[in-house]
Amino acid sequence: VSDPVAVHVGPGAPERLLAAVREGGGEPAALDEADAVVWNEGPGDFPSPLPDRVRWVQLPSAGVEAWFAAAVIDRDRTFTSAAGAYGRGVAEHAFALALAATHRLPEAARAERWGAPEPRALTGDTVAVVGAGGIGRELIAMLAPLDAEVLAVTRRGHPVPGATRTLPADRTHEVWPLAAVIVLAAPATAATRHLVGRDQLAAMRRDAVLVNVARGSLIDTDALVEALAQERIAGAALDVTDPEPLPDGHPLWREPRALITPHVANPAGADERAYADHVRENVGRFAAGRDLLAPIDLDAGY
Amino acid sequence: VSDPVAVHVGPGAPERLLAAVREGGGEPAALDEADAVVWNEGPGDFPSPLPDRVRWVQLPSAGVEAWFAAAVIDRDRTFTSAAGAYGRGVAEHAFALALAATHRLPEAARAERWGAPEPRALTGDTVAVVGAGGIGRELIAMLAPLDAEVLAVTRRGHPVPGATRTLPADRTHEVWPLAAVIVLAAPATAATRHLVGRDQLAAMRRDAVLVNVARGSLIDTDALVEALAQERIAGAALDVTDPEPLPDGHPLWREPRALITPHVANPAGADERAYADHVRENVGRFAAGRDLLAPIDLDAGY
Repeated sequence: VSDPVAVHVGPGAPERLLAAVREGGGEPAALDEADAVVWNEGPGDFPSPLPDRVRWVQLPSAGVEAWFAAAVIDRDRTFTSAAGAYGRGVAEHAFALALAATHRLPEAARAERWGAPEPRALTGDTVAVVGAGGIGRELIAMLAPLDAEVLAVTRRGHPVPGATRTLPADRTHEVWPLAAVIVLAAPATAATRHLVGRDQLAAMRRDAVLVNVARGSLIDTDALVEALAQERIAGAALDVTDPEPLPDGHPLWREPRALITPHVANPAGADERAYADHVRENVGRFAAGRDLLAPIDLDAGY
Repeated sequence: VSDPVAVHVGPGAPERLLAAVREGGGEPAALDEADAVVWNEGPGDFPSPLPDRVRWVQLPSAGVEAWFAAAVIDRDRTFTSAAGAYGRGVAEHAFALALAATHRLPEAARAERWGAPEPRALTGDTVAVVGAGGIGRELIAMLAPLDAEVLAVTRRGHPVPGATRTLPADRTHEVWPLAAVIVLAAPATAATRHLVGRDQLAAMRRDAVLVNVARGSLIDTDALVEALAQERIAGAALDVTDPEPLPDGHPLWREPRALITPHVANPAGADERAYADHVRENVGRFAAGRDLLAPIDLDAGY
């Protein structure tokens, strides 16, 4: 039996993460004696440079563009994100937004008298999940009892379980005219910036609703405002916006068929538990020399 | 081979129902030659008295209290309702309402600036389905991917597939303190009037949300208004109200944690298709001498 893996948890000493490290087969350690780092906050206080001995760094967020911007991520060791760890909570929020938009609940919530518009049923219709990673896969499982036709889009197009069809990213345009609901759950990268702009909105069904639980930058907000005002599409439900926070007086606040939640798809308590589960699993994998969950691909940018 | 069953479809001659009768093995007929009647409207113009020859009457609604009130239903023949026929569409709307309420979407929809309250996740929590008939069973299937603990209540308490526990109606009080979401999908009868009143609301979890897709009379509206105003429970999402339509200026229109949809859980087009499917199935069963779907129990009142 080899020595336990020395894992530095920081900043501070959050009990839940220390326990997860131990349960995964690691031993909490000071930074200068650590083989691995499990980080629990943003990039601001991240130790730089890292001791050479550190071979793996676990970051606490699913999207890591802020970490790239802060130049924390290097090629000298493996970095993993928490992509997938928070998938279920975010998927449930995405599902709630999708059903709310198709059932016209934003208009019902704002009504002050009987007579809000009739819902449309999602059962048996087509749902596109653009970016079928951890969140997308959980969402696809939730759609199963509705007998929805699921079109998944992933970078390379490897078939996603539960999807009727999986398309590679360079064929994303094929889903716009087909789907009643389009859920964006793709990482924010240079390639996905304004993935949905004027042309894509024009290609969508007029009864389509657009859901974004990824990052605001995936949508050209001005084009979306225009498409909603012109009734080019039936609605939008957004947990993330660009700019974010959405400023007071922004036209989306007054758009009857838009629903905005303030980047809350991950309830805080649920997040901590989910991150601890992810850390436990990855420490166990690191200790056993197995592939880690959610390795960051420096060339792909996530 | 015996003669086809003579089925009177009325009022009018809606093509979709005539086709359903033929596909089920029946033959459309005049009322005075009919063995069965498939009705397509309310009780107002229902033929009375019916010719003695009519042995079965299919009514087009799931809830039949208006038909009892009009004294249409008698003991001289079998009456069937459309209970169960519209289950899936109503279940999807109930699910949308439940997720909207737990994810705090009514408040988000009304917000005009960033900062609406954080959602609570339903995954893994407890959902009570009070009245687990056709709608309730479809809803339970939709809850499965969320790993929800489902407490079903039925009249007699026979185990419902997918439910963690099924309770008989006389033990309904046991579910109030347990459930994060309580969905009312029970028929409107004398026994279910004000099923949820002040005492029941007081027994619920403070973070519970109440969903009603059955009939408004199941809830004591004044007690609900008071419970919401006092934050005794976390929210209510109602497709049916008492009085209905909910009048202009009613306090529920101004209650931040209430969501009202105007009795639209059955989109009209979906309803027609669902009723035709139900008629086709029941004509086939009648022709074959088999048990009919949704027979009305005169003693139970539904």
